[in-house]
Amino acid sequence: MSKGIAENSENYQPGLSIDCVIFGFHDNQLKVLLIKTPYEDKWSLPGGFVPLDQDIDTAAVTVLNDRTGIEGIFLRQFATFGRVKRNDKHFEEVVLEHFKIPEKARKWFTQRFVTIGYYALVDFLKAIPQKETSGESIEWIDHKEVPELILDHKEILDKALQTLRIELNLMPIGYNLLPEKFTMPELQKLYETILDKKLDRRNFLRKINNIGILNKLEEKKSNVAHKAPNLYVFDKEKYDEVLKNGLNQGW
Amino acid sequence: MSKGIAENSENYQPGLSIDCVIFGFHDNQLKVLLIKTPYEDKWSLPGGFVPLDQDIDTAAVTVLNDRTGIEGIFLRQFATFGRVKRNDKHFEEVVLEHFKIPEKARKWFTQRFVTIGYYALVDFLKAIPQKETSGESIEWIDHKEVPELILDHKEILDKALQTLRIELNLMPIGYNLLPEKFTMPELQKLYETILDKKLDRRNFLRKINNIGILNKLEEKKSNVAHKAPNLYVFDKEKYDEVLKNGLNQGW
Repeated sequence: MSKGIAENSENYQPGLSIDCVIFGFHDNQLKVLLIKTPYEDKWSLPGGFVPLDQDIDTAAVTVLNDRTGIEGIFLRQFATFGRVKRNDKHFEEVVLEHFKIPEKARKWFTQRFVTIGYYALVDFLKAIPQKETSGESIEWIDHKEVPELILDHKEILDKALQTLRIELNLMPIGYNLLPEKFTMPELQKLYETILDKKLDRRNFLRKINNIGILNKLEEKKSNVAHKAPNLYVFDKEKYDEVLKNGLNQGW
Repeated sequence: MSKGIAENSENYQPGLSIDCVIFGFHDNQLKVLLIKTPYEDKWSLPGGFVPLDQDIDTAAVTVLNDRTGIEGIFLRQFATFGRVKRNDKHFEEVVLEHFKIPEKARKWFTQRFVTIGYYALVDFLKAIPQKETSGESIEWIDHKEVPELILDHKEILDKALQTLRIELNLMPIGYNLLPEKFTMPELQKLYETILDKKLDRRNFLRKINNIGILNKLEEKKSNVAHKAPNLYVFDKEKYDEVLKNGLNQGW
């Protein structure tokens, strides 16, 4: 990415980047897709720049598709980060050096950058992390075990998680994070993992049923030792309706 | 503003602006502070640019202070707007012409701009709309009677209002919009105006009291014809606590 831009920096919006916090749910963990480049010890969020002829939302979708190999993902802009000191001279030098950025493009890379944060919820089993170069690593990492990140990426990640927690009160969640068929304990576990707290089983059942977005299936979960739990699917039409109009009628 | 930048455009973040949706409450109307420049028939949101040595949040505070004359206002970033076609050649030409922008700064003004939206809640009686030039108008306009706006400013305004409505479910509101002492019907009217719907009096009373942020005063409202209603103030400490932790414990 950086190499392509070095030769065509005039085709990109100056001083603006995109960073994506991509969440997946697996093994009862909320995981985040992170990248380790060969030129930095710290990890980073997947990101990119904005071509002059592309909407910012499209640029974010591009990052997501490029990094997960899947399309049509739940993706939301959540905040823009623009403190002056988020920029880091040391990091700039490392990038210039590694990509052998030519003189004419150096000014572009070393200008002040403001970054727009997006978060995505993806199906862990369908998303296949894609490297951009052979020297880099891209991995799903439990959000509780995130290593040190470059620049203000930890702040961006924390803000995404905070937004996701707030939005649990405003919208249904799970369609993009769970397999098509799931049990009630699996759905509850998803909520507990995101909120980082235990929920009362009966209360959860009552609240989630009140939303009216679940269909209980006739079949039950197989391959379980004890009493087989019921399987559910989301009623996609009702789910999308609640997603659009908001969960909480509140006042 | 534009004139100053014409001579110092290299000191500003390129292709990035700030737009502020400033709400005030008066006469049972939710009003928005809008500007009519001498060089455009349409109205616009108050906005500005980002000096290279200023955080984006600081640049937004500057716009707000400059335009209302008050400080320490509730101000939140809510979204960034970056569609390619939000830029408008006609508008650019009008600005270049009006401000007699010199050749060297034309490229800066005619580049693609992405804008960060902030919304503010201010005390209508304390905010004194400030003109920047003698030829412009700046007025409080009922949000239901907003005239045609430049660029995508209507979309930005709509998104701010939508955000405010959603955030009524997440945080207390009113401290910045009502006078220090207010009646329960006044508070209810504020909610009804923002949500654009009638609320049940008893339900509202129960819900608002449950939040635990109101203190009922001994004194009653004077100068009223019939039975004098009770006066209330916000318990600022509890109010700030709920603002910080969120209203809705939800799950």
